[in-house]
Amino acid sequence: MASTDYKFEGWLGRNPDSVNGKMEWGEFEPKKWTEDDVDIEVTHCGMCGSDLHTLSSGWGEVPYPCCVGHEIVGKAVRVGSNVKNIALGDRVGVGAQSLSCLQPDCPACSAGEEMTCSNVNVNTYAARYPNDMGISYGGYSNYNRTNGHFVVKIPDQLASEHAAPMLCGGVTVYRPLKMNGCGPGKSVAIAGVGGLGHFGILFAKALGADRVAGISRKESKRKEVLALGADEYIATDDESNWEETHRRRFDIIISTVSSEKMPMNGYLKLLKTKGSLIQVGAPDGGALPPINVFTLLSNEIKLGGSPIGSPGDIREMLDLAVKKSVKPWIELRPLKDANQAILDLKAGRPRFRYVLVNEKNA
Amino acid sequence: MASTDYKFEGWLGRNPDSVNGKMEWGEFEPKKWTEDDVDIEVTHCGMCGSDLHTLSSGWGEVPYPCCVGHEIVGKAVRVGSNVKNIALGDRVGVGAQSLSCLQPDCPACSAGEEMTCSNVNVNTYAARYPNDMGISYGGYSNYNRTNGHFVVKIPDQLASEHAAPMLCGGVTVYRPLKMNGCGPGKSVAIAGVGGLGHFGILFAKALGADRVAGISRKESKRKEVLALGADEYIATDDESNWEETHRRRFDIIISTVSSEKMPMNGYLKLLKTKGSLIQVGAPDGGALPPINVFTLLSNEIKLGGSPIGSPGDIREMLDLAVKKSVKPWIELRPLKDANQAILDLKAGRPRFRYVLVNEKNA
Repeated sequence: MASTDYKFEGWLGRNPDSVNGKMEWGEFEPKKWTEDDVDIEVTHCGMCGSDLHTLSSGWGEVPYPCCVGHEIVGKAVRVGSNVKNIALGDRVGVGAQSLSCLQPDCPACSAGEEMTCSNVNVNTYAARYPNDMGISYGGYSNYNRTNGHFVVKIPDQLASEHAAPMLCGGVTVYRPLKMNGCGPGKSVAIAGVGGLGHFGILFAKALGADRVAGISRKESKRKEVLALGADEYIATDDESNWEETHRRRFDIIISTVSSEKMPMNGYLKLLKTKGSLIQVGAPDGGALPPINVFTLLSNEIKLGGSPIGSPGDIREMLDLAVKKSVKPWIELRPLKDANQAILDLKAGRPRFRYVLVNEKNA
Repeated sequence: MASTDYKFEGWLGRNPDSVNGKMEWGEFEPKKWTEDDVDIEVTHCGMCGSDLHTLSSGWGEVPYPCCVGHEIVGKAVRVGSNVKNIALGDRVGVGAQSLSCLQPDCPACSAGEEMTCSNVNVNTYAARYPNDMGISYGGYSNYNRTNGHFVVKIPDQLASEHAAPMLCGGVTVYRPLKMNGCGPGKSVAIAGVGGLGHFGILFAKALGADRVAGISRKESKRKEVLALGADEYIATDDESNWEETHRRRFDIIISTVSSEKMPMNGYLKLLKTKGSLIQVGAPDGGALPPINVFTLLSNEIKLGGSPIGSPGDIREMLDLAVKKSVKPWIELRPLKDANQAILDLKAGRPRFRYVLVNEKNA
């Protein structure tokens, strides 16, 4: 136990207009304390596209005020007596999920796939805890409270600003790469090279794929994507006939694109027989572009989705990041300038991930 | 070699209106003979939904006149000198594919997955052979000519009228069941219990699935589906809240439904985490109902497609049918009444598959 004489404060969105750089700094009431919880003094928080979708209510109703941010790194300053995996003072992280049912008879939780739990599934922000335990608030803040099962230790060899954006952005692409067999002998393409997509390239290489392609719209992005480590680049707006030129070349495609206008049937044509395209980006409202069944049939391919990762996936990914020296491309932004950073994120400016730094705590 | 003093005649669709029972009996010019080919005196031909989609040009342009039918059984009456797997007089069958490139460096053909060959892929009817070798004509006919690689021997223990509808309808569901791990320990649902769907239930049971459910719209079909061997039945029009009642219960769903209005997102909700729904039905034009990405993401599921099966799949399926005494539910229709049978097929009357019998040859 440690002193608890701190106030929970953060950047609060009070309505959908907050996404236009109109969050307000203020106090919030964290979930009710239990001995399963950990309080974290936040030092870093990655900025994720989900933050925009949530501030604007694009993915559904939001219990305003809401404090976004689910790539949280900081110091454990209070640790519930039931929490065995975290010690007071540890450098720890929290990703996009903060609670599941954790019951031994739950197929998801007992398999270490807490993110697919259908009994209890609480997001790290803008979600209601069951049993009137309160609302979740994220990491654009000075303190965060999360169930210890969803708090992971950050390996010493990883810088906090590198670990933070892996906790959602990294693991969201790491898990489908792993689940679909990314490794030696495989050709992988990453569609959309933004925050998630840049992690897709880094982790596909780290997992040992033979060949990794970046796919985006504009030719102008080529140099950057190759500099990230991609073996090749496909510009769908600027390369005529790309669907035919690259037909049936990839075993796995991870699509991080969240626009309804993405050329989904074109991406699907790039899959080898029996390949899978895994969608991790989600448009507002959730509608995918129309799918032509003949594209799926003729090549025996699959279109799947993958949510975030489990605490186990996060630990595994952080270990791989240490082992393979995975270094995300980030830009540090002071927490006090979060509103400007939200505007820049919305404008697609990060190359490739913004990480807020809480100067007071860091 | 045998005498070749026979004429190729069959029921010819001359335009999209032919689907309204207006096929005309007439002579056609089969593909040009090569020593890789087999001529078959047709005794039986199953009637497949594809026949309707093709006669009406619903799946694309058709080189009329066209003779449909790709569940062909008959006697080999001429066998090219390069054909090693078939002997003169053998009882043989042909499914929905009649040629692929068959080159050793083709990833599909060398893997025994000829139906996904992207170099050469000729359907058994209404397709053009490469190199001006002619057009393919199906089994609503007295004779058929097909490359010997795509001709399979029918096991002695199987009746011709039972084997015929397996050659497309059967293998189209057998392959995705096999590829997605249908067997002991698995729960399987078959959406749409028509010609394909009834095979789905029969083969899922034959493969040893723990539990097999039939899904269709109307409560009135329950008795029939259970009589087929299904362990349970879900009526999506008549069972309120079926999406929630049966949520996450199945490892594999095979959807044989080819209506754009099918409740696809509802079917997807019935999948267990990491499950797959495989679409084998194809609406005219190929458009699937809109897919909500959150349905895919939240449960890490996949939507795939599967084409027909390879000659290898067909042989494997026929062996299983013998071993497990799989007996399709069929109704025999005389070939001379093919126009009436087409009308009845269009009206959804078969329980569950019509097989044309060529009285002259049978």
